[in-house]
Amino acid sequence: MKKIIEIVPNYSEGKNKEVMEQIIAPFKDKDDIMLITLEMDASYNRSVVTVIGEVDTVLEAMIESGKIATKLIDLRVHKGEHRRMGAVDVCPIIPIKNISVEECITKTYEFAKKYNEATNVPIYLYNKSALKENRVTLPSIRKGEFEGMKDKIKLEEWYPDFGKNEIHETAGVSAIGVREFLIAYNIDLDTDDKEIAASIAKKIRFSSGGYRFIQAGPAYIEESNHVQVTMNITDYHKTAIYQAFEAVRMEAKRFDVSVKSSEIVGLVPLLALTNSLKYYLKLKDEDTLDLELNEVVKYAKEFLLLRDFDERKIIEYYVK
Amino acid sequence: MKKIIEIVPNYSEGKNKEVMEQIIAPFKDKDDIMLITLEMDASYNRSVVTVIGEVDTVLEAMIESGKIATKLIDLRVHKGEHRRMGAVDVCPIIPIKNISVEECITKTYEFAKKYNEATNVPIYLYNKSALKENRVTLPSIRKGEFEGMKDKIKLEEWYPDFGKNEIHETAGVSAIGVREFLIAYNIDLDTDDKEIAASIAKKIRFSSGGYRFIQAGPAYIEESNHVQVTMNITDYHKTAIYQAFEAVRMEAKRFDVSVKSSEIVGLVPLLALTNSLKYYLKLKDEDTLDLELNEVVKYAKEFLLLRDFDERKIIEYYVK
Repeated sequence: MKKIIEIVPNYSEGKNKEVMEQIIAPFKDKDDIMLITLEMDASYNRSVVTVIGEVDTVLEAMIESGKIATKLIDLRVHKGEHRRMGAVDVCPIIPIKNISVEECITKTYEFAKKYNEATNVPIYLYNKSALKENRVTLPSIRKGEFEGMKDKIKLEEWYPDFGKNEIHETAGVSAIGVREFLIAYNIDLDTDDKEIAASIAKKIRFSSGGYRFIQAGPAYIEESNHVQVTMNITDYHKTAIYQAFEAVRMEAKRFDVSVKSSEIVGLVPLLALTNSLKYYLKLKDEDTLDLELNEVVKYAKEFLLLRDFDERKIIEYYVK
Repeated sequence: MKKIIEIVPNYSEGKNKEVMEQIIAPFKDKDDIMLITLEMDASYNRSVVTVIGEVDTVLEAMIESGKIATKLIDLRVHKGEHRRMGAVDVCPIIPIKNISVEECITKTYEFAKKYNEATNVPIYLYNKSALKENRVTLPSIRKGEFEGMKDKIKLEEWYPDFGKNEIHETAGVSAIGVREFLIAYNIDLDTDDKEIAASIAKKIRFSSGGYRFIQAGPAYIEESNHVQVTMNITDYHKTAIYQAFEAVRMEAKRFDVSVKSSEIVGLVPLLALTNSLKYYLKLKDEDTLDLELNEVVKYAKEFLLLRDFDERKIIEYYVK
């Protein structure tokens, strides 16, 4: 059984398609690796890439990609709306199948060491891989950005975990670490009133008293003139999709607004869907629910009103 | 405008009614003080007392009560199911009206100092009044209980905040601190299956991914042969009663179980009720809802299916 991970490297280049094609080339035409998406954002001047595959092959390809990005991206002239500290700003590593969080963390250390040796970019271990408390969250590491890291890295508490305490002249520093799979989930409301979406988001998100693993805010979708509650579910094992969906439906009643559909942005693990389908199919958590991917899609559309959804949104489609 | 607080002292005596009557005597027949409840629990061998009133008068009466408890309760011979470290085990202080949390915290310091001088019992400041991180939660302070405190108090990190680092020979040590108002709220399910209540409690409580300010577990009620989801709502400003109620109702659907009623144990602030009624009356949070207490009771029974509920359960009944 192959050990499958996902990586979601963020590169500080969101405008030049040719440059990004060179950077992601190492993820293409290889056995055991699947390049899922390249999302370029011009105003952020940043690209988010999603890659799935066998752990060692993926991490080796990431080192090749990092070497190219280090050569081609020059942070000294980089401008964009998104905060950044490196050419490869951050590389999250997510265990998907046949590999535990612990094993993934161990792999990170080895990978970060090799990555630093190959690129000469200092590395901070973050999130579940963090070795120091001030490195658990990305904003804490990134504070000061590329321009400020030059001095920050000299402070003892900000010595990097791998590499010298000196930023790479053009590529800055990078953060690498294991994190939970994050589901980007949006719920469409039958209204164009953004205040209603804001009010509902406030009720369901952790920061203001809602569900523990929900981050949420409002969004207005111009094409269709409606609003969304836009969410991250940061640990779907503990806060389920159906809980987010039903909580929004419940809160919307106050405004006489209905939920008309919902959407998953990017990929979703099969388990996150089946766990929620069990609720609607009136099964217990401990019951098994063994469905074909097309059946999962059918039920997810029926119960969670998912739109623009098919098997290719489910991770297991790629790692069967 | 009088500054109103509530205190909920816990005494390590739950069997001897005469002793408890002496201990609570200072709360009786005084202007500006209302003794709300004395709940004695024989198996815990512990009593919980609820007192509301003008801040200085209440705290002075508490010192008198503490002096009596220190004389009458001997921890060396105390046995009960509930963990304890002092004759007055803990005295939570809750701001109710015309007094801020900050002012309450300042009052605690003064009160704790006087209390220690009057009783010679060492005091730990806990919860919002805590001055050291290891004193924020009660279980952390209480670990080792009366028997273990003798040595624990000698450790530098466990020196008390007021008093000598030596326990009171018979009355041990006490914790004093400001905390949020805690609503004890139970929801009755139309089943006698405790596993169902346990499963629902798990879904809604913070510790396993549910709402931020809900603690929950299952309970079986013998008299009526049904189960409850039994909860504490630890910050009703952020997680509302209606959210707990609707979340339980939603989760119960999986089991084809309905919510038949709910109950508030002890007191509830008016605001906690009106905030939830606004949801059912389709008002926004910022809308005002100005109801007489009897109307609040009527609506709360209608929407939250509250049983055994009347105006005397609402704090504002006593502090109009």
